Amino acid sequence: MQTTRLEHDFLGERAIPEEAYYGIQTLRAMENFNITGIPLKSEPLFVQALAYVKKAAALTNRELGVLDPTIADYIVRACDKVASGELNDHFLTDMIQGGAGTSVNMNANEVIANVALELMGKPKGQYEFCHPNNHVNCSQSTNDAYPTAFRIALSNKLVGYSATLGQLADAFATKGEEFRNVLKMGRTQLQDAVPMSMGDEFKAFATNLREELLRIEDSRRLISEINMGATAIGTRVNAPDGYAELVTQHLRAITGLDLSLAGDLIEATYDTGAYVQLSGVLKRTAVKLSKICNDLRLLSSGPRTGLFEINLPPLQPGSSIMPGKVNPVVPEVVNQTAFYVIGADLTVTMAAEGGQLQLNVMEPVISFALFTSISYMTNACHTLREKCVLGITANAQHTENMVRNSIGIVTQLNPVLGYEASAEIAKEALKTGKSVHDIAVTERQLLTQAKWDEIFTFENLIRPGFIQ
Amino acid sequence: MQTTRLEHDFLGERAIPEEAYYGIQTLRAMENFNITGIPLKSEPLFVQALAYVKKAAALTNRELGVLDPTIADYIVRACDKVASGELNDHFLTDMIQGGAGTSVNMNANEVIANVALELMGKPKGQYEFCHPNNHVNCSQSTNDAYPTAFRIALSNKLVGYSATLGQLADAFATKGEEFRNVLKMGRTQLQDAVPMSMGDEFKAFATNLREELLRIEDSRRLISEINMGATAIGTRVNAPDGYAELVTQHLRAITGLDLSLAGDLIEATYDTGAYVQLSGVLKRTAVKLSKICNDLRLLSSGPRTGLFEINLPPLQPGSSIMPGKVNPVVPEVVNQTAFYVIGADLTVTMAAEGGQLQLNVMEPVISFALFTSISYMTNACHTLREKCVLGITANAQHTENMVRNSIGIVTQLNPVLGYEASAEIAKEALKTGKSVHDIAVTERQLLTQAKWDEIFTFENLIRPGFIQ
Amino acid sequence: MQTTRLEHDFLGERAIPEEAYYGIQTLRAMENFNITGIPLKSEPLFVQALAYVKKAAALTNRELGVLDPTIADYIVRACDKVASGELNDHFLTDMIQGGAGTSVNMNANEVIANVALELMGKPKGQYEFCHPNNHVNCSQSTNDAYPTAFRIALSNKLVGYSATLGQLADAFATKGEEFRNVLKMGRTQLQDAVPMSMGDEFKAFATNLREELLRIEDSRRLISEINMGATAIGTRVNAPDGYAELVTQHLRAITGLDLSLAGDLIEATYDTGAYVQLSGVLKRTAVKLSKICNDLRLLSSGPRTGLFEINLPPLQPGSSIMPGKVNPVVPEVVNQTAFYVIGADLTVTMAAEGGQLQLNVMEPVISFALFTSISYMTNACHTLREKCVLGITANAQHTENMVRNSIGIVTQLNPVLGYEASAEIAKEALKTGKSVHDIAVTERQLLTQAKWDEIFTFENLIRPGFIQ
Amino acid sequence: MQTTRLEHDFLGERAIPEEAYYGIQTLRAMENFNITGIPLKSEPLFVQALAYVKKAAALTNRELGVLDPTIADYIVRACDKVASGELNDHFLTDMIQGGAGTSVNMNANEVIANVALELMGKPKGQYEFCHPNNHVNCSQSTNDAYPTAFRIALSNKLVGYSATLGQLADAFATKGEEFRNVLKMGRTQLQDAVPMSMGDEFKAFATNLREELLRIEDSRRLISEINMGATAIGTRVNAPDGYAELVTQHLRAITGLDLSLAGDLIEATYDTGAYVQLSGVLKRTAVKLSKICNDLRLLSSGPRTGLFEINLPPLQPGSSIMPGKVNPVVPEVVNQTAFYVIGADLTVTMAAEGGQLQLNVMEPVISFALFTSISYMTNACHTLREKCVLGITANAQHTENMVRNSIGIVTQLNPVLGYEASAEIAKEALKTGKSVHDIAVTERQLLTQAKWDEIFTFENLIRPGFIQ
Repeated sequence: MQTTRLEHDFLGERAIPEEAYYGIQTLRAMENFNITGIPLKSEPLFVQALAYVKKAAALTNRELGVLDPTIADYIVRACDKVASGELNDHFLTDMIQGGAGTSVNMNANEVIANVALELMGKPKGQYEFCHPNNHVNCSQSTNDAYPTAFRIALSNKLVGYSATLGQLADAFATKGEEFRNVLKMGRTQLQDAVPMSMGDEFKAFATNLREELLRIEDSRRLISEINMGATAIGTRVNAPDGYAELVTQHLRAITGLDLSLAGDLIEATYDTGAYVQLSGVLKRTAVKLSKICNDLRLLSSGPRTGLFEINLPPLQPGSSIMPGKVNPVVPEVVNQTAFYVIGADLTVTMAAEGGQLQLNVMEPVISFALFTSISYMTNACHTLREKCVLGITANAQHTENMVRNSIGIVTQLNPVLGYEASAEIAKEALKTGKSVHDIAVTERQLLTQAKWDEIFTFENLIRPGFIQ
Repeated sequence: MQTTRLEHDFLGERAIPEEAYYGIQTLRAMENFNITGIPLKSEPLFVQALAYVKKAAALTNRELGVLDPTIADYIVRACDKVASGELNDHFLTDMIQGGAGTSVNMNANEVIANVALELMGKPKGQYEFCHPNNHVNCSQSTNDAYPTAFRIALSNKLVGYSATLGQLADAFATKGEEFRNVLKMGRTQLQDAVPMSMGDEFKAFATNLREELLRIEDSRRLISEINMGATAIGTRVNAPDGYAELVTQHLRAITGLDLSLAGDLIEATYDTGAYVQLSGVLKRTAVKLSKICNDLRLLSSGPRTGLFEINLPPLQPGSSIMPGKVNPVVPEVVNQTAFYVIGADLTVTMAAEGGQLQLNVMEPVISFALFTSISYMTNACHTLREKCVLGITANAQHTENMVRNSIGIVTQLNPVLGYEASAEIAKEALKTGKSVHDIAVTERQLLTQAKWDEIFTFENLIRPGFIQ
Repeated sequence: MQTTRLEHDFLGERAIPEEAYYGIQTLRAMENFNITGIPLKSEPLFVQALAYVKKAAALTNRELGVLDPTIADYIVRACDKVASGELNDHFLTDMIQGGAGTSVNMNANEVIANVALELMGKPKGQYEFCHPNNHVNCSQSTNDAYPTAFRIALSNKLVGYSATLGQLADAFATKGEEFRNVLKMGRTQLQDAVPMSMGDEFKAFATNLREELLRIEDSRRLISEINMGATAIGTRVNAPDGYAELVTQHLRAITGLDLSLAGDLIEATYDTGAYVQLSGVLKRTAVKLSKICNDLRLLSSGPRTGLFEINLPPLQPGSSIMPGKVNPVVPEVVNQTAFYVIGADLTVTMAAEGGQLQLNVMEPVISFALFTSISYMTNACHTLREKCVLGITANAQHTENMVRNSIGIVTQLNPVLGYEASAEIAKEALKTGKSVHDIAVTERQLLTQAKWDEIFTFENLIRPGFIQ
Repeated sequence: MQTTRLEHDFLGERAIPEEAYYGIQTLRAMENFNITGIPLKSEPLFVQALAYVKKAAALTNRELGVLDPTIADYIVRACDKVASGELNDHFLTDMIQGGAGTSVNMNANEVIANVALELMGKPKGQYEFCHPNNHVNCSQSTNDAYPTAFRIALSNKLVGYSATLGQLADAFATKGEEFRNVLKMGRTQLQDAVPMSMGDEFKAFATNLREELLRIEDSRRLISEINMGATAIGTRVNAPDGYAELVTQHLRAITGLDLSLAGDLIEATYDTGAYVQLSGVLKRTAVKLSKICNDLRLLSSGPRTGLFEINLPPLQPGSSIMPGKVNPVVPEVVNQTAFYVIGADLTVTMAAEGGQLQLNVMEPVISFALFTSISYMTNACHTLREKCVLGITANAQHTENMVRNSIGIVTQLNPVLGYEASAEIAKEALKTGKSVHDIAVTERQLLTQAKWDEIFTFENLIRPGFIQ
């Protein structure tokens, strides 16, 4: 039989497993919320951030004289242990939960209180010596502690994501350099347009993704505005004078993040604008990644009846029935990840819209959506780089042949022959299957072979200069 | 100077232009709601449906003795005039409006009252002889009259849409028949898969869209459940006994639609489930159309560096700079229409979720989104048929050449050689550029030329039988 | 050191842990796809359905003489073991994956082959005796086996969901009966409207959700159309004559589901319309649940400064700082689940739109989204019933007092006094704070006390009859 | 009979109405695209921006010697006329169109060419003197001219929107000042929380919206990066050396906007990231406005059975059946506008994801969605300010009474009595209906009346200090 201890709150008494560092309110939350089966501990950065918040509060409370210094010291030591990750298994409330994060906050308060009690040499649950609410949560409300920890965790999680995304962009840039002298046909609307360098195509992927790094930094700036000291609904009720400013300072020191105190604490307590913005940034990157993967799949289509411009590294047999088939499985999985993230952005949008009056009670699902999206995007970027981009090769001879045989090169004749004459050549080429050269130089003698050669050098095809 | 008449409501008195058939409440609504600039009259079927509802109510009220028979008759005649469309220019409230449709309902009540007054030989605004609320709106509430008219209008609008969509499906089926002996490579994941008939590809488009006709009928069934007689919040307050059942009967006769009275009027009065379902059906068709247009654009890509399997009718020069370029502009416009409709479905979703307690106040934006989506989808289907599908041609020689030259035909060797041996051939073909035939028959002698010929007949490629 | 066996495919050779029933292709997939960390085994019904599909195929292949009867029997026995769930731990590919489900299909093929080998007394990996592709996957392609298993799993999963949703509806109906004589004010647009029975309000919730059960049945009908025998892209290539029809028959018998073979196998192989429809149904229910939970939260708002019409069972202390606060945590968690499901519907929509040509390669993320949504919705419905609806109580005296004190009861005077006179009373009541009775009967003497008493009986307030 | 002139392009010859300034390509586009019925001229800022782009190109072409100076001058003069708006009626292509904007660009090229011809004294259509492609479109492609004009139009349109949004925020701030001494109960999760100032609630609305002004500026910065000189797919083909830089400089001077040339023209030509970002900003503001309007509707609920904290100005009778009912019609219309804008953001997202290779062909629907959203949001903000916020009044006595009678004030006792004792008082108050004062001071004597009075001053309730 499991040993238990009794704990109570104003709704009654419950038995808690003796080894559990969490207490009665966490137990109730575990019973009440069973939607995803994914517990808080699956986001270790969130647990760590909760510990940082509680530590900063304890230090501030001690300094302002509202918390016994000895108790404060034990809380600080307990927070350090929790921040180290060793208590993660006691953070068990479901990621989607009611109560606007109260259960997450109380989970942290209870674990920290019991760790502090243990450090004091007291049995767990002897909350008169260190109480989850009166001591650990002192001068705080879920309304401020929860979003502050959430924002710290997001900011830290974005660091890793941003690095991975940057490496992916770098991989595209490296390929861009490698392919700089691969001549290929550019396409608009899936129709042959004008020649270009495959290197420029891949460099553009890099440019496209590098812009996202700046947007992620924008997001980190917006989420670095916190509301610690707001307490209930932003009124600062029950927090001593100067608390908000001082706790922010402590938190900056503890986290190393450039945190700032919101100017309007009433607003900051319910506002989810920074999450919507961040979710929008994740979505934007997802849209771009999806577009890039669509392109990679198109360009590698074939081998015999597609564009066959590039080869993706073969990773696994592509069919249970079609022998030798190899599929672009990594771009495919990235596309799907993007669709997930775009869906999650809608979840965030609706949750943000659903907030009412002085608090947005839907913040837990926002946290679930954002944490999941950042994780999946990080995984997708890593996979795309390692399993795909680094190993892409170009079919340079084939792509150059396609250009030489194309009608699209007629655009280069525009400045010499004018749009209408060029269009006539194009029309004739399309109708008869003849080459632009044959029509323009041989048949119609609209320009000399020498002029043709001047215009259609490899260099001028791949990086066109202006020739009249 | 414009001649005006004075009207009043419990908020005060206002001057109405003498020629206007609408009254003070419509005027207020016109002033209050200026979001889209698109007035109610842009949906003539909605105006007509409002007239039907008011006519059915008048007939029922007369029969049940709660409305003076003479007044009822004038109202009926006024409704007939409104239903004919001749008063459309007096339906002017903005499509997105507050008030849960009260302004739409009052716009109808006022116009009908004034038309009735005119028929009586009375000046407009002499509401003691025929009052917008007491007489035209008798035994009704916006809560029942508005959604009932909305549903009738939707049902009628879907008839035209469904016909147009059906014609588009038929056009694909006809092309399927035309292309039945065009051999082409089928593709999965943009990689060469196995040979198929282009006719089957086009017939599948027809099948895909014809399923939508059934879903539209489902939607029409769901929206044919109405709540006339519910009056305020579904309590039937102020409606005489038997009213709900009788007015439904009249409305069935007037509209010719298979309308039925909801079993739970409280629920029916706030429920927007049928709109969400209909919007989902429109979205599903949009998704399918978008997929089909993506395919048409892919299949017609080229002319020299794309798949070039089919040709879409050229409609306009495709570039201001690239001579001779022709783009798949119609599939492109259909894709974009689909994106619009998918966005509008989200609008409907959020509006449905935002309803509270006994009424969904967001119904006007639902009506705007649904009417617009149906219109745009109808236009898109018509355009796709007329300007694109009917004129598609196949490059049959080219597609057959691609099949013959492909590696994908190796799948047909599976039952004879097994998956692994076939995979070896495929791998060798990919690596060396050789044909499957050369490797399998000439080099490796894994099957005889006779067996090869048996397997790779045109008929067996385009419609494979089982050969071991 | 871990014992391993060597396996090979056409990309090379790999060492597989000896105890693993999966093989080289599953291993590659596990390495290639690391996005969610959620493996296939988290959907046991999917694993089971894969076993059903493979069993039906083996039986059919034996009957049609394309599979050695002894091997077929071992495959059948292996499928039974897999269907029982005992091999679930060997289904390890990530829920979001590239390859259009090939890895899921091969995971099943490999596990079944190795279980069959074990039953034969052969070591794992001796595929010459029972080969994942040649034998287990015989007459199949991922293009048909995967969606068929997916559809069977969905259909079975919907059974449990539907039951739970039905029980929730029943709970609302029971409360509706309990509250039938609770008089309360109905509200439209958050403004006092007319009186109603709280019982009718709760019965409407039941009606609202019961309609969903019918929609779920629609979805189950649509997803019961399968494409077994389509093989690659729906051409039936490599499947013996009569296979598609016979395997469907076997699958009906094995699963007990009313499965049918699609009429157009080319279309059925790429079509994701049934998933879009099902996702739309889940979304519609989510929208309704969210609306209902919004209402429950509104109606239970207070205790002193809100509507305070009902009490939700207190489940946990509601604040870390505000003593005695109890929050509507269960409706809150249901709202958030709804937002998740609505987001997942967008994922499905985009994945469906992203399919190209003869296959929709995005089906894995569709499966992830749908399975997750059904699970979460089931959990949410169960939680809402057990932890909330069953324990709701009404503050009947308070709600009746609010009605008696309201202005909204003036509507009941309409048939007697007319709309304008009634509006005057309402306006006066609002301005002065006086009661409708005082103004109508005492001050203005517009009706007698006797008439008043006739109109405003409890019975006529809660279930209004027509009184002129 | 209408007089016409003949024009031709490489698809053939067509008759154009003599009075039309547009030409054959616009005519074809008008025939090909009939989806929305909303023509280009409905966005006058877009027409204007097209003229600016063409003018800058002409000036640059003249300076670089690639355009005859006389022709260039006539084009410049024609552009000035078009920019003035007087030719708007000739911009008639549908807002949703295929061709990636080619029709918009050609519509501008043709109108400008014909205006220039008229200024030269030539008949319309005599394009040898001033040709839409060779002269007006010289050194340009739709790929650069179209997005550049689109971005300029967006930037200018955002100026008006931002001003209107700022005025709305100011109106809330003014109300905040007006209500600074209105004491009310703050609510979290719709449950009574702690007292607050209604002024702070309204100031928070202002803060919330003012943040959006900064985000709009971010967007304007991102869309000010243009790709003029990129020509076809960003290769600069057919543009003279130095053209891109010089035309950007001219465009800065003409528009007064801080435009810059993109660093990677290949990327800039297909990238739609800036539109996705802008759409996300519009969506974020829509989410906030919707939340604020939800609050306004909640706070004004009643009059007798709701919160009744504030009064919105009555604008129109709220019901066709319930006399005296007045609804919050303006917040309702703003909610619905928000839902529209959120839906349009999804349209933009899908269009952005649907771009392929060197160009995003879906840009027209992006332009339609963004222009519409900005217009509707501007209208909604204006309406909300003028018709609602400016006239809001507070029911100060009622809100103070609710606070005094609440249990939520018990939080202020926390620092004195501790969380658990306070919770006991709250529980007792809830159960018995007694006041916190009666239980704490009179019955349990946990604090003196003097201490009570010190804590519960009006000032300490509305702006709590820290009292232990």
